[in-house]
Amino acid sequence: MEHVSEKSIERITLYRRILLRLQKAGRESIYSHELARLSGSLPAKVRRDLMSIGYSGTPVHGYKVGVLLESISEFIDRGGKTNVAIVGIGNLGRSIAGYIQGRRSKMDISALFDKDPILVDRVIIGIRCYHIDELAKVVKEKDIQLAIITVPEGEAQAVADVLVSAGIKGILNYAPLKLQTPPDVYIEDRDMIMAVEKVAYYSRNK
Amino acid sequence: MEHVSEKSIERITLYRRILLRLQKAGRESIYSHELARLSGSLPAKVRRDLMSIGYSGTPVHGYKVGVLLESISEFIDRGGKTNVAIVGIGNLGRSIAGYIQGRRSKMDISALFDKDPILVDRVIIGIRCYHIDELAKVVKEKDIQLAIITVPEGEAQAVADVLVSAGIKGILNYAPLKLQTPPDVYIEDRDMIMAVEKVAYYSRNK
Repeated sequence: MEHVSEKSIERITLYRRILLRLQKAGRESIYSHELARLSGSLPAKVRRDLMSIGYSGTPVHGYKVGVLLESISEFIDRGGKTNVAIVGIGNLGRSIAGYIQGRRSKMDISALFDKDPILVDRVIIGIRCYHIDELAKVVKEKDIQLAIITVPEGEAQAVADVLVSAGIKGILNYAPLKLQTPPDVYIEDRDMIMAVEKVAYYSRNK
Repeated sequence: MEHVSEKSIERITLYRRILLRLQKAGRESIYSHELARLSGSLPAKVRRDLMSIGYSGTPVHGYKVGVLLESISEFIDRGGKTNVAIVGIGNLGRSIAGYIQGRRSKMDISALFDKDPILVDRVIIGIRCYHIDELAKVVKEKDIQLAIITVPEGEAQAVADVLVSAGIKGILNYAPLKLQTPPDVYIEDRDMIMAVEKVAYYSRNK
């Protein structure tokens, strides 16, 4: 189970979102071809992904939505709850906080960080905002495992350095630069200009 | 030049960002190994990427930063300026608008769209916000080629349908679902929960 590809992980979290939506709407089972269509994938790929997470249902009458959701959760969330910090509470930081908080039982935004005195010590969307100087202390106190960086370009590397030395092993970086971190830290870069330029390039060449 | 991989495109837009930063700081030339280090890549990969975009400099004394930037711009921006619309002007839409606008000479946020009467007809960060019902009309009038969707999940597909029928060929989608579009439309999905879950998964397994 350790060698599931990044693309598979992305698809599996997408299946979960789709399944949660279907479950809300009262659906109890789903065929692989339907899950494939909704996720923009192929039925064989869906079946392979679900086998790779150890889902052992027999898909003759379709997969059971509830059981499938449990299998996905066991696979993605194993090890229990993830405590998350967001560093940089501008528009982007707020939108991410509002978007994630309360949507996943196994994920908790435990703290926000900024250096703006207007934000520090305030509670935003139910989450306390600390001064960025308290990063290392709060990360340890609150057992935070994952950080989302949304500070400006010039501050991101210093923030990452503090996070890494406080023991953070996963960073989602929205600042527009490649952070330098040790190999045991997993970083996902989500630069927006990069994304827009990529779409511009490919749409022009379609 | 048509078969440059997605990963290469991502790296090339990253090189541009790094080079722009170096140029600002007064740097005139750079070696492939330095560009590799700053971009988290390998020197051979950097050289291959730059050859694939038709950069024909001789890198013995390093690449010329200015010339390299021009080559990258010719490659990524060819066809001229891209007019962009952002649909959904919440925290995320605003942060994307503020982030892109003015940072790229070849990219222009031409219009914002929302349905909130408080936003409609206002000018935000110098850009006019239109009612979402005017999408098709404004996209044609302003020759918009690319759209960024930041509306809630339940509204995203309807927005995409209107965009596609108005002739949009590139969509950057931040709404948490897989949009259904014709094959001649290039879509890049940037769901935040997917990104966070992926980081959580890999950081736990590092």
